[in-house]
This record gives sequence, structure tokens and C-alpha cells, in this order.
Amino acid sequence: MSTYNPVTPAIAEELKTIVGEKNVIFNDQEHLFPFSHDEIPGTRYRTMPEAVVFPESAEEVSKIIRLANRELIPLTPRGAGSGLSGGAVPIYGGIVIASSRMNRILEFDAENLMITVEPGVIANDINEHIKESGLFYAGYPMSMESCFIGGNIGENAGGGKAVKYGVTSRYVLGLEVVLPNGDIVEVGGKLLKDVTGYNMVPLFSGSEGTLGFVTKIILKLIPRPKEQVDLLCLFEKPEQAVQAVPEILTKSGVLPTSLEYMDKVAVQKACEYLHEELPYEKCGAMLIVTLDGDDMEELIAEYERVGKFCEECGATEIYVADNKVNSERIWKIRRAVPEAFSLASPLQSGEDVVVPPNAIAKVAAQCKIIAEKYGVFIPCYGHAGDGNLHARVTPPKSWSEEKWYATLPEILKELYAAVKKEGGRISGEHGIGHKRKKYMECVVSKEYLNMLRTLKRAFDPNNIMNPGKIFDLE
Amino acid sequence: MSTYNPVTPAIAEELKTIVGEKNVIFNDQEHLFPFSHDEIPGTRYRTMPEAVVFPESAEEVSKIIRLANRELIPLTPRGAGSGLSGGAVPIYGGIVIASSRMNRILEFDAENLMITVEPGVIANDINEHIKESGLFYAGYPMSMESCFIGGNIGENAGGGKAVKYGVTSRYVLGLEVVLPNGDIVEVGGKLLKDVTGYNMVPLFSGSEGTLGFVTKIILKLIPRPKEQVDLLCLFEKPEQAVQAVPEILTKSGVLPTSLEYMDKVAVQKACEYLHEELPYEKCGAMLIVTLDGDDMEELIAEYERVGKFCEECGATEIYVADNKVNSERIWKIRRAVPEAFSLASPLQSGEDVVVPPNAIAKVAAQCKIIAEKYGVFIPCYGHAGDGNLHARVTPPKSWSEEKWYATLPEILKELYAAVKKEGGRISGEHGIGHKRKKYMECVVSKEYLNMLRTLKRAFDPNNIMNPGKIFDLE
Repeated sequence: MSTYNPVTPAIAEELKTIVGEKNVIFNDQEHLFPFSHDEIPGTRYRTMPEAVVFPESAEEVSKIIRLANRELIPLTPRGAGSGLSGGAVPIYGGIVIASSRMNRILEFDAENLMITVEPGVIANDINEHIKESGLFYAGYPMSMESCFIGGNIGENAGGGKAVKYGVTSRYVLGLEVVLPNGDIVEVGGKLLKDVTGYNMVPLFSGSEGTLGFVTKIILKLIPRPKEQVDLLCLFEKPEQAVQAVPEILTKSGVLPTSLEYMDKVAVQKACEYLHEELPYEKCGAMLIVTLDGDDMEELIAEYERVGKFCEECGATEIYVADNKVNSERIWKIRRAVPEAFSLASPLQSGEDVVVPPNAIAKVAAQCKIIAEKYGVFIPCYGHAGDGNLHARVTPPKSWSEEKWYATLPEILKELYAAVKKEGGRISGEHGIGHKRKKYMECVVSKEYLNMLRTLKRAFDPNNIMNPGKIFDLE
Repeated sequence: MSTYNPVTPAIAEELKTIVGEKNVIFNDQEHLFPFSHDEIPGTRYRTMPEAVVFPESAEEVSKIIRLANRELIPLTPRGAGSGLSGGAVPIYGGIVIASSRMNRILEFDAENLMITVEPGVIANDINEHIKESGLFYAGYPMSMESCFIGGNIGENAGGGKAVKYGVTSRYVLGLEVVLPNGDIVEVGGKLLKDVTGYNMVPLFSGSEGTLGFVTKIILKLIPRPKEQVDLLCLFEKPEQAVQAVPEILTKSGVLPTSLEYMDKVAVQKACEYLHEELPYEKCGAMLIVTLDGDDMEELIAEYERVGKFCEECGATEIYVADNKVNSERIWKIRRAVPEAFSLASPLQSGEDVVVPPNAIAKVAAQCKIIAEKYGVFIPCYGHAGDGNLHARVTPPKSWSEEKWYATLPEILKELYAAVKKEGGRISGEHGIGHKRKKYMECVVSKEYLNMLRTLKRAFDPNNIMNPGKIFDLE
């Protein structure tokens, strides 16, 4: 592990010279506190930074990084802080670099179907900005009303529309990145293809700020489908719902935009949180199937086909939302699930496993077995169409914190072993951060980890960019 | 530059122990010769290997790589040898590792819409293998009847359907790679999303075999559209044809599968080569616009819309191919252009510039100006919908080889400066290889190149994996 130096008052002064007096927080515990955590429930994964800086340009970021190299001070990039794996938490103290002042939409290039933005732009604001154009940015993380696009890139965010549209990196054409050595580089560009050098843009996507700080982003836009229909399909048993997923994907001939799963507990928690009524009492699980396209007649034919498949798989009721109000009502419930769970207890672990889509049912069944074995609850929801299951491992109220943290690793190792058996991994979209790093070896080989470490060391020999995330260096 | 050691008879014996006697070529100039070149016209970019090995497994590849590290012998991975930038040419001699014996389709997983193949499988054979399934692999390089999927990944091949379907890397979900240190790693998997570690799969795509040797590939499949229509649109002037491209992309409301451009000379050469008749005499350029989908009525509405746009942009005639025979007739001409040009003269440079789609017209105009200035020909064709223009710089017959190679760098620098001005790069899909490496600095910064070199050095400290490609190390 690297040994870092503290942020001294002299260094804080130097930071102020770089970004301006009012854009540095130092020696002010109250204002530093919000930068000590992300959205992981509980207090276990929190660490206070020594300073927070708010740069406004790549040049300022470069100066901060050069300073940190010179003084051996760890840097932690931060977007909206809406992450769920501790990626933005400054676990060695040091300096948090916040992107919130780099929040400009720089250019909407309608002719090339591209938009250039800074990392601190809220994901949803991109679509608000271009809503009259007939185009849209197809990323749709569940926190899109608050998360920053820079963070989406840091985590290679997935979300609700990845079945049809893929994850964040599919839309990232170009980046301006300040490397851990302070160099400012442009990778990619306004280009739909480019093999002039290595394919670096996707490498930065999902690197959790360990390989550089992104200061500019060129995103690809696509024509916004004119019509959307959502089906809310109720199943008596969770097994029936998850089993319907590969059936829809492979046999219906329809590629849904979204294929979301929520078990009864997930629906219930979200409904209670929102004071919303849904007839969840009689059902064991629900699927949301969203279809989009330009032709309503075709969509109707498609949703009837999908609905028939769901009925054959055991759906007892199917509600159709073919207007924005009803659609938003359904999706609001889905988006509220994580927050509703998070409020329930500080002792819980939000899992994010990913497996081949046809193995979802097996992993969901395994969650049930593990929950019974350990006497805990493992409600599940998530992006079933991507094979990405969010399992909220939660202890009964009677458990002490001590018992919980003593037992959790055993539960997780068992879950991850089941995931590995299916060829899966421990994170589909939330990232590894520092929350999951000690479990990496449950699913990947030592040689693989060695490769990641080699790459990180080459980019960041002083290990100053978000150290201790994804893996430790030694 | 690294200093390498020769392949001695003792080393050749050791190679034979690894892969079997009959799977090594050594001391046999006649059989080594085919491995000295790719499909670049002329003889300038050729170098003889000292040995060629044909491994059959990742374990054999690993042993070869460990041997090469121990003895400091350069290794050059090779697929079908259909490249156009010298990527598979062993410029420092040494050992060529050919993937042709690793040519098995390992598993077609219909439930997950995936297929697992070895690198030596011909791209087109993947689709032949699954043609009854209703699924397809959406990669479509122009050489797909001969190129290997491993090479497609090495170059991150684009091709004729990238406007709608994107390039190779969009479909690569998982790889088994033997790293330059001999470690065998799995990156990605049968997973539609995965943030468990860095996003390594796309990094290997387009790395030209400089970061490892791919031994297994998991590809994503998608439902094959049931219907296809091709439009062949004739324009009087090339400017009109290229200007129609962004118009179609942004204003027609239709996303074509393909949007290909051929100027008169390209069409003429291909027709002569194929003994095919097309009414090219009266036209200055052609566009092929391909549309696909499941509903023929919708496709007809779409092609009428696109046709109208082309007419407004000056198309004088539009032919519609709505059956496989006519479609194949058009596409055969398009696919034959590179080979037809290559036969015309050994003195030519096949360029592969890529720019934002709306800048294609400017670059095509610049080609005309440069051609006139230097007294050369620069016929153009290519994937206009991706902003990817293939320009064949060709001297008049009167030029000596000496004059050609003295003048070409000046021509290219001028072309690349025009490309850079539009935010473009020097290769969209053919790769840099050793043919273009000295021009990298025309379009990318020193800091960017330094980043690539840092990455390469970390992966391959002895510089044995395809050295001298994309960039030199010092």
C-alpha cells in the first residue's frame, strides 16, 4: 500500500491558487462531510476527505493532479455521489475532485447526431436539452434525475434500457481525459469508428476514475422512438417471472427496450415509499416489459405477442400502459426500489450480480436457498433482460451489527460462487469500488487481476488516482 | 528499437515439440513466403518470417509466447492475411503465429443469443452456421468471405453494415487472450454487461495483436431482419452524392443499415473486374443505401422516403433491389472495389480516413484539390454513412517508383491535415499497422502516443508481440 502525505495548509493554499479561493473546502468538517460517502446504506463505507476542490477546466484538473503527484496525495474523483460501491469515497483521505462546476452542455451537433458535455451534467438534463430535436441519449440509469454523466462513464452505468440500447459506453464516442500523470489527452472524437491507436474510450468507461479524470464527453445520439408501451405483468411465483425472461428474449421475436424484474418485497417497499397502490398482494413477482418504436400498430402487435408469452409462463394479470402518465407511474415505482430498500435498514448489502440471461432463474433460486440457510432476507429486483440481478441481502431486525458483518462475507461468498458457476460476475453496473474489491477473486483469476494491476501501475505509478478502488495494488 | 534474436534450428525444434512437427514452417522459403505480406498492393510492406507456427490451443500459444520472451524473438499474430495496413507482416522476422488451425465453432448458445468461436473461423462461416436460427452476427467486413474473426477483432473491423449495427467490438462479449507474458486470461464472458474490473474486451479489439493473442471469442447475436432492400442511387456529380449522406442520416428519419459511396472510377474498376454491366457512364458517383427490417411495407415506405431525399440531392436514377439476387449483384460490385483497384497498379496507397459524417463532402473535395495539385488520381469509395472514406491515391503510369515514394508522404500529409482539421483520424477500420505508423502524429498528440506506448510497455516489456505496429516504442 502506498504511503500518502497529508493535505497541509500550504497545499490547500496552492489548491486555492489553482481553482480560486471559494472552490476549495479545507479544514471545515461540516462541509467536507457530504463528500465522505456515496449512497451505500449505513456508515461503514465512509471516510472523510481532507480537502475538496471544484475545478472548472481540464487545465485546472491537470494542475491538481501534478500537485498530487509531487506531494503524494491521493485524489478521488466525484460526480453526483449517487454511486453504490464507494467509488467516490476518499478512503485514504486526501483530495476529492468534484465535477459539479464542470456542468456545461458544450455543443449539440444535430448534423452529426452528437452532443458534447462536461462531466458534471445530470444525465437526464442531456435529454431535456434536446427534447425538441427528435433525438435522444439512450443511457437510462435508474438515478438519471440526479447522477452525473461523468459518473455514468466512471461506472459504465447500465440501467433500464440496456436490453435494447446497451450500456453507457456504447454511446461514448470521445473523451477528454486528464491522465494520472497530468497529461490532457483526447481519445476518440466525433467519429463513429476509429482505429487510429488503441480503443481507449471504452477502457476509461468503467475504470472508476482510477485511470484519469474525464473533463469532456462526446456522446452519440439516436432518433427517439415515437411510441412506447409498458406492460406490467404479475406472476404468482417469482420463478415464473424470471423464467419468462429468456423466453421473451429468444422466442417472442421482439427485442424489448426494458425487461425489469421486481419480486413482491421490492414492489411493496417501493409502493409504501411512494404511497402508491399496486395490486401486489396476490402476486409473487412482476415484470416490466417496455417496447418502443415508431409505429403504434406494430407495437400493439408486439406487446400482444409478449403478453401471450408471459401468460404462457404463468402471468395472472397484465396491465398495459400506453401513455406517458401510466408509463411514468410504473417506472417511478421501479426507480424507487433502491431508495426504498436503503431506508429500510443501515444493515444491508445491495448486490449487483450479472450472469448469462438464461441463468437468472438459477441465481434467483440460489438466493432463496442462501437466505433460508443463513436466516436472512434476499429480496431481488433488477435488469433481468441483461442478466443483472440486484439482490438486497438484509438481516432480520434481531441481528446485531457485529453478527451482520461477521456473517455477510460468508453469505456473499456463497452467492458469488453460485454466480461464478454460471459464468457470471459480481457487478453488472454498480462497480467494484472498495465495497466489493476483496471479493474479486471469487469470480476472476489471479492472472486477470494481475493484468489490471499492471495496467493501473503503468498509468499511475504513484497510485494517486482513486487508490484502493476495484483492487489493491499489493 | 529492441534487438531480437534469430530463430535458430534449436528453437525451431522446440516449436515443433510444442505444436507438432508438421505445424511449423522453418527453413523453407517457398512456404514461408505467403506469410510475408498481407493484401497491401505492391511489395514495399513485405518481410519474410523466420518461422511460422500453427498452434491449436491457448496452452500452445502460451508456450510459444513464453519461449519468445525467453529468447527475445518477435511474434506476429496472423489471421487470414487479408489486412490492408501490414498488421500481420513480421517486420522484424521472427515467428508468425497463425490462427488457421484454431478454426472451430465451439458453441452456438441460442438461449443466450451468443456464439463461441476460435479466432481462425471465417467471419461469414459464423452466419452460415446459424442461418436456420433466425439470428445473425452483425459484423460485415468487405472481405467477410475470407477474413478470420480473430483478425476482425485485431483490427476492430468495420464494414458495410456499421451505420446501423456498429463495428466488430459492439458484438464481442468475451475473449480468451494469451497475454504477452504468457498468461491465459478470460476477459468478459457470456455477459451483456459487466463492470467487474476494467472494460478490457474493447481494448483488445483493435489492438492489432500487440497486447496479446486471442484464442477464444464470445460473440453476441441479434435477430436477423426478415427483409432487406437496397437502393442504388446514381448522381451526376460526386459532391451531390456525398452531400446526400448527412441529409439521409439526419433528415429522412430512417437509419439505414448501409450507406456506401463509390465514385465513377471505383464503380468502373469493379465492373470491369467482374465483367458486370452498370450504367455508370453517365454518372459521377453512386450511393448504395441498404435498409432492413421485419416489415416489407414499412421498408417500402422508408426507401421511398430515402429515394425522395436522394432525388432532392440530385440523384438522376435510382434502382431498387428488393430480392437477394439483385442485392447480391450490387454488393458484389461494392465488395470487389478494393481488389479491382489493387490489381490496377502496385504503386498506390489505399487510404482509410474517418471524419465526422457531415465532413465527408469537405474531405472528398480536398482529395480532388490534392489530386490536381500533385498530378495524381484519388478515386474514392467507402462507408460514407460512418464518415469513413477509402481514397486510393494512385500515380499516373508515367511515374517511376522512386518519384512515387518520394511524393506520397507529401500527399498524405496534406490529406491528413485536411482530415485533422475536421476532427478526423487516419484510419477508420483498416488499422495503422506499420504502413501508417509514421503518420500517427499528423492527427494525434504526443501525450496520446505516450499513453499508448506506456500501455504497450506495461503489457509487453520485451516488446515481442507484433512489435513495430501502430507505433514504435522509441
